[in-house]
Amino acid sequence: MQLMKASWVEVEEYLQTSKAIVIPIGSVEQHGPNGLLGTDALCPEIIAHRAAAQANLLVGPTFNVGCAQHHLDFAGTITLRPSTMIAAMQDWIASLRRHGFERIYWLNGHGGNIATINAAFAEVYAELSFAKTPPEQALQLKLQNWWQLPGVTELCNEIYPVGHGAHATASEVAVTYAAYPEAQKQVEMTPKIAPMGEISHAYAYRQSFPDGRIGSDPSQANVEDGERIIQKAATALISEFTQFSD
Amino acid sequence: MQLMKASWVEVEEYLQTSKAIVIPIGSVEQHGPNGLLGTDALCPEIIAHRAAAQANLLVGPTFNVGCAQHHLDFAGTITLRPSTMIAAMQDWIASLRRHGFERIYWLNGHGGNIATINAAFAEVYAELSFAKTPPEQALQLKLQNWWQLPGVTELCNEIYPVGHGAHATASEVAVTYAAYPEAQKQVEMTPKIAPMGEISHAYAYRQSFPDGRIGSDPSQANVEDGERIIQKAATALISEFTQFSD
Amino acid sequence: MQLMKASWVEVEEYLQTSKAIVIPIGSVEQHGPNGLLGTDALCPEIIAHRAAAQANLLVGPTFNVGCAQHHLDFAGTITLRPSTMIAAMQDWIASLRRHGFERIYWLNGHGGNIATINAAFAEVYAELSFAKTPPEQALQLKLQNWWQLPGVTELCNEIYPVGHGAHATASEVAVTYAAYPEAQKQVEMTPKIAPMGEISHAYAYRQSFPDGRIGSDPSQANVEDGERIIQKAATALISEFTQFSD
Amino acid sequence: MQLMKASWVEVEEYLQTSKAIVIPIGSVEQHGPNGLLGTDALCPEIIAHRAAAQANLLVGPTFNVGCAQHHLDFAGTITLRPSTMIAAMQDWIASLRRHGFERIYWLNGHGGNIATINAAFAEVYAELSFAKTPPEQALQLKLQNWWQLPGVTELCNEIYPVGHGAHATASEVAVTYAAYPEAQKQVEMTPKIAPMGEISHAYAYRQSFPDGRIGSDPSQANVEDGERIIQKAATALISEFTQFSD
Amino acid sequence: MQLMKASWVEVEEYLQTSKAIVIPIGSVEQHGPNGLLGTDALCPEIIAHRAAAQANLLVGPTFNVGCAQHHLDFAGTITLRPSTMIAAMQDWIASLRRHGFERIYWLNGHGGNIATINAAFAEVYAELSFAKTPPEQALQLKLQNWWQLPGVTELCNEIYPVGHGAHATASEVAVTYAAYPEAQKQVEMTPKIAPMGEISHAYAYRQSFPDGRIGSDPSQANVEDGERIIQKAATALISEFTQFSD
Amino acid sequence: MQLMKASWVEVEEYLQTSKAIVIPIGSVEQHGPNGLLGTDALCPEIIAHRAAAQANLLVGPTFNVGCAQHHLDFAGTITLRPSTMIAAMQDWIASLRRHGFERIYWLNGHGGNIATINAAFAEVYAELSFAKTPPEQALQLKLQNWWQLPGVTELCNEIYPVGHGAHATASEVAVTYAAYPEAQKQVEMTPKIAPMGEISHAYAYRQSFPDGRIGSDPSQANVEDGERIIQKAATALISEFTQFSD
Ligand code: NI
Ligand code: NI
Ligand code: NI
Ligand code: NI
Ligand code: NI
Ligand code: NI
Repeated sequence: MQLMKASWVEVEEYLQTSKAIVIPIGSVEQHGPNGLLGTDALCPEIIAHRAAAQANLLVGPTFNVGCAQHHLDFAGTITLRPSTMIAAMQDWIASLRRHGFERIYWLNGHGGNIATINAAFAEVYAELSFAKTPPEQALQLKLQNWWQLPGVTELCNEIYPVGHGAHATASEVAVTYAAYPEAQKQVEMTPKIAPMGEISHAYAYRQSFPDGRIGSDPSQANVEDGERIIQKAATALISEFTQFSD
Repeated sequence: MQLMKASWVEVEEYLQTSKAIVIPIGSVEQHGPNGLLGTDALCPEIIAHRAAAQANLLVGPTFNVGCAQHHLDFAGTITLRPSTMIAAMQDWIASLRRHGFERIYWLNGHGGNIATINAAFAEVYAELSFAKTPPEQALQLKLQNWWQLPGVTELCNEIYPVGHGAHATASEVAVTYAAYPEAQKQVEMTPKIAPMGEISHAYAYRQSFPDGRIGSDPSQANVEDGERIIQKAATALISEFTQFSD
Repeated sequence: MQLMKASWVEVEEYLQTSKAIVIPIGSVEQHGPNGLLGTDALCPEIIAHRAAAQANLLVGPTFNVGCAQHHLDFAGTITLRPSTMIAAMQDWIASLRRHGFERIYWLNGHGGNIATINAAFAEVYAELSFAKTPPEQALQLKLQNWWQLPGVTELCNEIYPVGHGAHATASEVAVTYAAYPEAQKQVEMTPKIAPMGEISHAYAYRQSFPDGRIGSDPSQANVEDGERIIQKAATALISEFTQFSD
Repeated sequence: MQLMKASWVEVEEYLQTSKAIVIPIGSVEQHGPNGLLGTDALCPEIIAHRAAAQANLLVGPTFNVGCAQHHLDFAGTITLRPSTMIAAMQDWIASLRRHGFERIYWLNGHGGNIATINAAFAEVYAELSFAKTPPEQALQLKLQNWWQLPGVTELCNEIYPVGHGAHATASEVAVTYAAYPEAQKQVEMTPKIAPMGEISHAYAYRQSFPDGRIGSDPSQANVEDGERIIQKAATALISEFTQFSD
Repeated sequence: MQLMKASWVEVEEYLQTSKAIVIPIGSVEQHGPNGLLGTDALCPEIIAHRAAAQANLLVGPTFNVGCAQHHLDFAGTITLRPSTMIAAMQDWIASLRRHGFERIYWLNGHGGNIATINAAFAEVYAELSFAKTPPEQALQLKLQNWWQLPGVTELCNEIYPVGHGAHATASEVAVTYAAYPEAQKQVEMTPKIAPMGEISHAYAYRQSFPDGRIGSDPSQANVEDGERIIQKAATALISEFTQFSD
Repeated sequence: MQLMKASWVEVEEYLQTSKAIVIPIGSVEQHGPNGLLGTDALCPEIIAHRAAAQANLLVGPTFNVGCAQHHLDFAGTITLRPSTMIAAMQDWIASLRRHGFERIYWLNGHGGNIATINAAFAEVYAELSFAKTPPEQALQLKLQNWWQLPGVTELCNEIYPVGHGAHATASEVAVTYAAYPEAQKQVEMTPKIAPMGEISHAYAYRQSFPDGRIGSDPSQANVEDGERIIQKAATALISEFTQFSD
């Protein structure tokens, strides 16, 4: 079930059976010459929605804008400062806890979010930890990157043995192409495989990675590959989330 | 063009022709027994995407979670505190300005956001106003509620002369039904038309509005009505945004 | 009773009879060539003090500096950022609640404050709404602009059928002149009636409104008009506040 | 000149002759059985306004609510958290600097404000100090407590050799009585002279100081004494401010 | 006992006997040509550790970086903004209260910290004061500057009758030399005794105090003097803390 | 060179030769029955000071209190909220940049800090990335955990093939014992090797890890092992930092 398309009555009923929810979390940032700006938000959303269509699992709204300061020299990138993201995640979690959710599974689509998501978890936990008495309501916060769901990295490497890369990867572009075929873009990559390197601020980033890609050749991406990855990830998500829910 | 499905190269090209962008902004909150939790985010998104399909207009990601504290006693509602929302909007605006956007048109779907959106505008403008020299880069921030686009309120009142209401309105439910027919819910409303009243915190809200609706009978909503409203609003948006862009 | 001139013992006694208080809230900002910088703080203060002299009504200190970033290009304007104003209002409200006040009536003198006052209300309410149990202590926050007290706009339009305006209005200047006749300033207005327009940041504001006025001819203001308006507004405030208190 | 009753044109003219301004800063807090809740804001305001009537000195609006958490167990007290007060003072100072003010003299009426005022100064200075180049615009922030203006403490001790006290002092009550004789309150003090002690939070405060006073017998206060103190302080302020302005 | 070298079991045992703790708090800032950047953090740490070696007294970690914005024009200075320092002290205090500490004695090494430490105390107390019921757990926060421990100023003045000074004092340099003789620096002072003056931001500071010292001749400092001062201060601390603990 | 024991003149001279600095960063938190509360701050400090004694490398003050909310149920633990830690690190970095430092190497002693340190880096970089022009001053922020310095993990595993563990590890306890032999504690571990598990808030932590250890038998720790580890780590640090500095 997608929370965004459910009524409050339906969510209330769901809560009779489970205190767990999936929140897709991503970023809006450049993904090279043929990747979508929304890639990192769309991938976990696509996978979670697929899972929700195949199992009894509640998916919340997508936390779409994350930590992408290093991509700001490329048009269209939008970022939160980490401190803002922590505040926003606190509010989301406080809202969900208000309804009785006790297990919140953040399905992440962006490596640059990982630190801040974990910092936000600690910020929320700290409130419970400072209290002189144990919390009456349990709370478990889990971060999972979609590409690290069991079996997914293996599949991606199998499909793209060369030029999978680290940003604007062949696999994430494929996932979005499978879900939004009309958004496919034919672009020749120069160089074929992008360079690797270190990340700091946006001006340094662009010097190291002139077209935005890191280590990848995303021109390999296609709908069929994307479909395989989505299904693999969705199946793994169902399994992992089911375990997490109990 | 939808920014989420565009590449940075495409956004850079768009910026050669226009410095303006539409940001749909909404809320995730209960919308009565048959309305979707995502209604207020989905409505401006649906309308903006329709407009983008019919004209050269860039639509950014949807700012989906807004100010909905008063709905928190109904399952599924998610809110930001106003101070968090101001911080997040600051970051979105700073990001867009970084790329050269100078006119940001916020198409809003939620009455409860209006105050905080305007406060966020003032927060952003204040930074320019405190500076000892005029800003080198122009900035215009505009808020428009989709139901106040020219002609839309009139159409909604024409379609629903009775029981249109103030929250979980017949028209907003219709808009979401037209876009997501699979999410339609058949629920009998009791009472037929919900009460009117004042809003404060969530506990008081639920006492005044037991099933969440205010003044409405959204069981009147259907796909055909929604389609008419969407098209009316999209056409008006194109016209208003075009004028705003110049 | 004016809180500022009362002892704590007197306020404690008042709380035996009522849990309601009026807080005048305004701004310190240019009001054109003949208007006082304090106009927006002084008007609600003058009206509330008049009401307190004629009825059993407690008036708190004046929240004098508000949101006036758009006036910063004119000397003497002082503004809070909206986020600061929210924090300050939170503290005022927390203080008043500590003593048992449950109904706080903010009598506002500045259009530019409206959004942030409402955002501050939502920030305060959110704390109650996030809580897992209903608040033990009731809370009602009300915003009223003095010029929208029943009958006041009508009177102003009757007195100033032409050139009442939108900022540095004839009526608000008259109110301050009636209370502080020694502060009257004779200035010829050029043009007689100021232009109308849109508001954004301070540099744009001054270009649109070179002497600060919007749409008004405040040279019409005089002590007698001001006195009529004050008394009309005070009477209306007494009536509305009495109702609010119950 | 009082800024609140001046026009922006008059402040602009003043800035041709001086870059200095006085800001009265106080608190709204209990002042014992016969003292006014507004005492600490009113005293510096009264003195500064008197000075402004006798010399060419610009007085800004009164920063009326300060740091009074320790008085919160007495009805009517209103406090800012220190962090809020710092933010508000930053905004006031940023506004004044925008107009060209370079020397801001804070005439304080409340001992409990001293730490936070100095912290706010450091917060503002820090912004200049972090910058890689010296500030183009000078900035001098000065704190003066009205009772420490040259000669004032001596006068107070002379008038009240016994029972002047440390909070709700005979002298501050006298100052407010002189300015607002209608607000005088006849209350017998029990004990005649209040106890001395340490200050922490509000509950501990009330245990140590049951009627709010510290070390004082403010029933000695009268209009004539107040008038002497006001004039002494105003004269000293004119002299000190004149020196500060150059 | 030093908390940093104790186990949690040992601290738990200590808490059976006392709810009090000493926190050395200082600054990292220039201390003239021969003083250590760590002087203000090291002095209270040295004294507290000496005391802990001679009595049953728990010393927490040193809060080493404080408010030193005015020294930023000298290499090596590190400062917190006052608002950051307040937040950090809140967290330290919340942590200590979590374990049952009720009396926290801050032994301070830096004049520039005093205002912000007191503001932080008020910030923490305010939380208790806003609450509708008295705190279940007592809290006493105390600030003591090491040079104001009974007898210490007298000793310093006796040892350095001339050129003790106000910053980079002979005595504080001596204290650090006694603890870290290897860090002694032989520098001739020019002028012999540094000038006195006012403090604002870092650029103004350096103009007034070209080598960083204020009013001092720290070339007088030596290990023997430092040792005497340390022992004097440690003895006074033991006595004062013992009284504070009860 | 240790910054805390250097004068500003010496740091200024150092800056002629290098723009790089090491900042030890740790935590104050329980480390099981025989580990020191300061372990995570002391380890990087010990290693960095050893390196500074053997090479030309500047070590700043130790950022001693970090993110340790999960340990709060054990006496003596002190934590910052992640948002506070971000603010503090921003201030430290702003201070260092003010002096010309361009490369800041954070030698970390606590796994629980990693997320927040990286979030703080992104917060600082974001300021540069939002700017419309590239930074005039370079900035490189590096995080290294001392146990991940080349060769160190291998050495630890070699010394402690069994029961090295994940928190309160044999190796970190050994490092502190080597530096502070007087702080050694003889405690029998029950069970010999502590359990492994997941971390969330402090109450859950204590249930999973009753004496604080995770997976370790730190009773194996001794001075000789610690000395070997310190020297290995210091040598690796010198080498890595030298490369980082260029
Ligand atoms: Ni990606
Ligand atoms: Ni709606
Ligand atoms: Ni006005
Ligand atoms: Ni007072
Ligand atoms: Ni010092
Ligand atoms: Ni550790």
